[in-house]
Order: sequence, then structure tokens, then C-alpha cells
Amino acid sequence: MLDACQDADLITEITLQPVHRYGVDAAILFSDIVLPLRAVGVGVELRPGVGPVIERPIRNAADISGLRQLEAGGLPFITKAVRSLVAELGGIPLIGFAGGPFTLACYLVDGGPSKNYSITKSLMYGDAELWHALLGKLADITISFLTTQVDAGVSAVQLFDSWAGIVGPEDYRRSVLPYSQRVFAALADRDVPRIHFGVGTGELLGLLSEAGADVVGVDWRVSLDEAVPRVAPGTALQGNLDPAVLLAPWPVVEKRAREVLTRGRTAEGHVFNLGHGVLPETEPDVLARLTDLVHSVPSRQVS
Amino acid sequence: MLDACQDADLITEITLQPVHRYGVDAAILFSDIVLPLRAVGVGVELRPGVGPVIERPIRNAADISGLRQLEAGGLPFITKAVRSLVAELGGIPLIGFAGGPFTLACYLVDGGPSKNYSITKSLMYGDAELWHALLGKLADITISFLTTQVDAGVSAVQLFDSWAGIVGPEDYRRSVLPYSQRVFAALADRDVPRIHFGVGTGELLGLLSEAGADVVGVDWRVSLDEAVPRVAPGTALQGNLDPAVLLAPWPVVEKRAREVLTRGRTAEGHVFNLGHGVLPETEPDVLARLTDLVHSVPSRQVS
Repeated sequence: MLDACQDADLITEITLQPVHRYGVDAAILFSDIVLPLRAVGVGVELRPGVGPVIERPIRNAADISGLRQLEAGGLPFITKAVRSLVAELGGIPLIGFAGGPFTLACYLVDGGPSKNYSITKSLMYGDAELWHALLGKLADITISFLTTQVDAGVSAVQLFDSWAGIVGPEDYRRSVLPYSQRVFAALADRDVPRIHFGVGTGELLGLLSEAGADVVGVDWRVSLDEAVPRVAPGTALQGNLDPAVLLAPWPVVEKRAREVLTRGRTAEGHVFNLGHGVLPETEPDVLARLTDLVHSVPSRQVS
Repeated sequence: MLDACQDADLITEITLQPVHRYGVDAAILFSDIVLPLRAVGVGVELRPGVGPVIERPIRNAADISGLRQLEAGGLPFITKAVRSLVAELGGIPLIGFAGGPFTLACYLVDGGPSKNYSITKSLMYGDAELWHALLGKLADITISFLTTQVDAGVSAVQLFDSWAGIVGPEDYRRSVLPYSQRVFAALADRDVPRIHFGVGTGELLGLLSEAGADVVGVDWRVSLDEAVPRVAPGTALQGNLDPAVLLAPWPVVEKRAREVLTRGRTAEGHVFNLGHGVLPETEPDVLARLTDLVHSVPSRQVS
């Protein structure tokens, strides 16, 4: 799968699939959170049923100083794929994609998916100097990855800080926020809307917007009308149908999706989406009906 | 391990270990969330590195109606272990233990540990009648399990609804709360403090106390002073040091533990604890030092 993420033709083909199949309003670049790590020489593979596994986890000063930067031009297949996608998509926006520095650190330090990312968190709690050195490098890698995408023509970017929600707000502010902020600041003058997403981030929604996001993604644990006062004024929301709802009978899906749309109207702007990724057991037909349903409800505004 | 949970001598021995080793202020009954399921005939084993695996997951009306009740006297080894523990512990309180009906449903329906418990949630979202039938049975099993423990002499009970935090507040109120409420109500006249715990429950703390808890457990994502206004007046808090902190150097552990103690003073009562279970990689010495540290800080009150 990581090989597919490095082949411009496959990236293009897979990115276009949901647009062709469901007629969604935007495409999101097919890639993987750990792709830029492989591009700087980190040994990483995606194990089926497991996720990204790091050959040699990064845990000390030598490991961190050995972490290379991602050079401009270091991802030619991304540049090529984005250019061809922009041409193929016509007026449909292409959303760029990168993992947040914290989430990259989770994989690098723990060495792969974990229930608690306890090794990562003990580094964060226990060694501020190493932690900040690591996160600084990861922020720069992320900036380079997203800048490559923006230079090649994406219309918006999304920072997936999947695991941010395992950290409390004070630790987030001290140990995570500065680096996500640095990523968003580097894109501030590029005129691309910046989306910021994590799971289980009810306590962090204000900080996710403070990081410099124009749009904050919300999972299903907080209803959109509850999320509005937690983010900075003017911030749009993205979300937040529970992906598990799509496994229920259609009338339930419809009722829940309409609730999300109604609550989304209380926000400054609303991008309808699931609160997390599509579950593998989801019927494609349900996704098609859901897209049609959302399209059938008049938007309050086009942003 | 489930076999150990059915042997009164082993339950007694393992329950006493942390009291003897660390001198903690209370013992918690060694058991497992799925134990009462096995006691009513559900095929379940604990697979090392995985967790509880259910032989035949419960997903339809026939499965649910086949679920037996837990008869009084159905757990003689629990009665025996609690009696011998109460005698051995002298004045040290023994806390009883059961999984919440929702968490039991997660294992029963999904068939084992899962990232999303999507099958469970789709049943909850999609079939209210089956869901309520299932949760009603599980509440009754839980009541029987806890009543056995109270009858035998435990001084307090803790309801572990580990996965409650995967549900938003409106669904919790509709689909989970009534059953946890039923469990706590059944113990209301038994004069045992009732503790209610889940992970990632920042949005649910008020509902966890509304369920009838005297003490609400808080994980590390919400600081205790922030949790106080979220629970009903008069509710004590339990928690909330991140278990991953214990993997950091001692000065960090000490600083963080003192912060928890200071913030705990803003609550009506505070039971110092970790925000979730001890991580397997924790050094026993750190647990000993932590216990001593907490004991060295004068309590505001003895409750």
C-alpha cells in the first residue's frame, strides 16, 4: 500500500475513485500519514491488519538527529499526481493531506499502532528537550510535504493529527500545539483553506482552531452545535456522522445525517463528513445514498 | 486468567498483592469484566495480547433471549473470596468490581476487543428494541454480580464502563444511562459508595454522576478542577494521573502526582488514582514511591 502511495498513476486513480463513484464535492489526495517518513529514509511498512510498523523506533538524541529533512522536490510522484489530478478534476477541489507532527511522533517512537502510545507520551512527559527536537523535525517534514502539494495545485490542506486526543489540553498546548501551529503558519500566505482533524478531541477543539485552522474536524462525540462555541469565531466545522451509523438501516442513516446537517447550520461554515474514516464493512450503496441525501439538502451558503 | 478469577484462593492472593506490596489504602477485587458472562454460560476466553474473545457473538433476538440470568449463589467462589479477603484485610476497605452493561455489550456483540465497536454501535443506533432487551439483561447480570459482592462484605463498588466514551452524550443518555442507572439504583440502599469509571468520558462526566454514582472516575484528559463543575454537586472524583507518566523519570512523576492532588482538593472528595490501569511496563518501584508520596501529603478530609 505504501508502494501505491509512491506511484503517481495509482495515486491519481485511487484519489478519483470516490469522485467518480459517489460524486462527492471534493477529492482527498490518496496517501498515507507515514509516507513522508519513508521519503526521508525511515524504514516503515504497512502491515495488513496492523498499520504502519517502524523498523527502528526513534527514542534517543542520536535517533532524532539522524532524522533527515524532506527536501523540496523529494516527492516527485506527489507533484506529478497532484498536477494530473487537478487537470482531471476540473472544477472539483483536491484536498491535500498530511499527518500531524504529534501523530507522526506516535508511530515513530512507539514503533507502530498502540492502544496508549505510552512510550511516546513518556518521552513527551519526561524529556522536553528531546521531545521538542523531535517535534520540530517532524513539523518541518510536514511543512515540506504539504508545501509540495500546494505548489502542485491542491485547493485546501488537511492536517490529520489522528491521536492528538490522547493528550490533555495543557500538555497539548505545551507539547503539540507549537508544532501544528508552525505547520499552519507556513501555509498562511498560500490562500488554501486549512483543515485540522483529530479523534476524541472534545477537550481540544479550541486549541485545534488556535493552531491556525480555518476548519476544525469534529468526531461524533461532540455535536456540531456544541462544538461551535469551543472554536474561535469564524472557524468552520467539518463532520461529524459516526461511521458506525452507516452500518444501521437506511432510515437511521438518513435521520442521523439530517441531524448533522441541521446542527452544522449553527456553525460559520460546515463541511459535511463522517466523524472518522469509512469503516471497511460499509456498503458502498449506503455511501452513494448518503452523498445524494446531502446534495438534496440546500446549502445555507457556498463557501 | 479467567480460571484464576474463579478460584477463591487465587482471587484472594492476587487481590492482596498490591496491599502487601505497596500499602495502598484499599484493595480492589481481582476479577474480570467478562467473568459474569462466563458464569451465565457464554463461551469466552481471555487470549493473551488480545483480551476477551466471545465464542459466539450475540447479535439477534434469539441470541439475546438465550442469555441466561445470573442466579443468586451462582458465583460461590466470589462469595468465598470476598469473605476471606474482608477477614484478611482487617480495616482496609475492599472495593467490588463489575463491568458496565454497555461495555459487556461491546464484547458480546463485537465478539472481542475492537477499535470502534462498530457492530455494537450499529445495533444500538439501528435496533432500539434489541438493544434495550440486551442491555436490560446485562444490567440484571451486573446487579446480581455486584449484589453477590456486597452481600459477602465489600465496602464499595466500582462499575467499569470502560468503553462508554465511544458514545456521544445524547446516545449515552438514551441507550446506556438507563442501564447503569438501574445497576446503581439496585445498590442504593446497601450503604456502599458507588464508583463509576470510563475512559475518554470528558463529555459524559455529568451523565456518569447522574447514573447514581457517589464517585466519578476521570481519566487524564480532563483535569480534576475542570471535572468538578461537570458532575453533580456532592460527587467525589477519582483519578487522574496518566499511567504513561509513570514511565517518565521520578521528578516528573512527583510533580504530576502533586498537581493531581492539588487539583483534587477542589472536589467534594478525591480518591487519588491513575486515570486508567497500570501499564505492564511500569516499574514496581515507581508504584511504591508514588504510594508513599500520596501518603505523605496530608488529606483534606477522611471520607
